[in-house]
Amino acid sequence: MQELSCGTSNIVGVRFAVYPMADDFVKIIKGALKETDTSKVWMETDDVTTCIRGRSEHVFDTAKAIFVHAAKTGTHVVFNGTFSVGCPGDSEGDSYMSEDSHRLNEQAVSGEKIDTAAHFSLYPMNNPDYMQVIADQVETAEKHGTFTKGVHYASRLDGDVSDVFTTLEEAFVRASETKNRAHVTMTAAISANSPSTKAK
Amino acid sequence: MQELSCGTSNIVGVRFAVYPMADDFVKIIKGALKETDTSKVWMETDDVTTCIRGRSEHVFDTAKAIFVHAAKTGTHVVFNGTFSVGCPGDSEGDSYMSEDSHRLNEQAVSGEKIDTAAHFSLYPMNNPDYMQVIADQVETAEKHGTFTKGVHYASRLDGDVSDVFTTLEEAFVRASETKNRAHVTMTAAISANSPSTKAK
Ligand SMILES: [Ca+2]
Repeated sequence: MQELSCGTSNIVGVRFAVYPMADDFVKIIKGALKETDTSKVWMETDDVTTCIRGRSEHVFDTAKAIFVHAAKTGTHVVFNGTFSVGCPGDSEGDSYMSEDSHRLNEQAVSGEKIDTAAHFSLYPMNNPDYMQVIADQVETAEKHGTFTKGVHYASRLDGDVSDVFTTLEEAFVRASETKNRAHVTMTAAISANSPSTKAK
Repeated sequence: MQELSCGTSNIVGVRFAVYPMADDFVKIIKGALKETDTSKVWMETDDVTTCIRGRSEHVFDTAKAIFVHAAKTGTHVVFNGTFSVGCPGDSEGDSYMSEDSHRLNEQAVSGEKIDTAAHFSLYPMNNPDYMQVIADQVETAEKHGTFTKGVHYASRLDGDVSDVFTTLEEAFVRASETKNRAHVTMTAAISANSPSTKAK
């Protein structure tokens, strides 16, 4: 059931999937999940997507780790998902909000250099100034050196997977700080090892 | 660069990708594109996603056809994308708005029976009543018989690919009609031929 009002928790979530374009996609996904420490996030997987919830830094840390462990196989892999904060009004996963801020996967993943290309879009909800919030976060991306250009409905990022994830995390967090208890969502498609020529 | 204001066109767009989880994913995608009549939409593909723009019915017709032609191979294929209306403020693709409403791919695709599972989310922008708009479109999905349940940040649909796409199109169009020149986006992940057990 959809809730009619937003909750009071600042819990962050991402509903996503990692798509390895390979016959052995199940093995790649299971391997990536096994290599990722998910103990600081609430996590649920079904046949369509996976949902991770908890503190912002652990949601990004975990999502990035799963993608990196899949992409380091060299297979063409895409992460596609939507990050959310400020809604819905449930309390499931709230216990994970008391974790400390130490990122469990940072060290294991930071050594992997993986070139990526991404499209992302920010959706600040119920905010008359939302176009300005979006424009400001394009500037955040420019500051990180990952912003390549605007495309219809999205912004393109290029760069190492760590720089791209750092950009996305900062854009998302900054957009969510523009309003008290802001409800903000952010879609991101991040591609690694694509056989296509970069549209950079 | 991101626009700071919304345009005056009612052009609908979708930025999406179709992910075949198979070694021959390039062949499957190219085959699906070749079988789809894209002449009534503006279309651009890069190494991350594809963008289709035009009249609502042709955007949905074309996106569905590409997915169906890929999924009918029996491969585990996922469509993942974001539909948008009401923004941005450009005029590129406006010429396609004068096409008639006859759907070019409907006949070729309607014979394909493909069981799917989907997660979708509506984001009505700059609207204080957005949670009600979302709840109303869950009822649209219930009416179509495709709504299974709410999950965190999304609603789950199950059913034949045509019923799922019809549900998504109606939910999106109805949500965009709740306000004059509404800016509405809708994410959808649609999975076919998954080896995982349905979480229905
Ligand atoms: Ca209901």
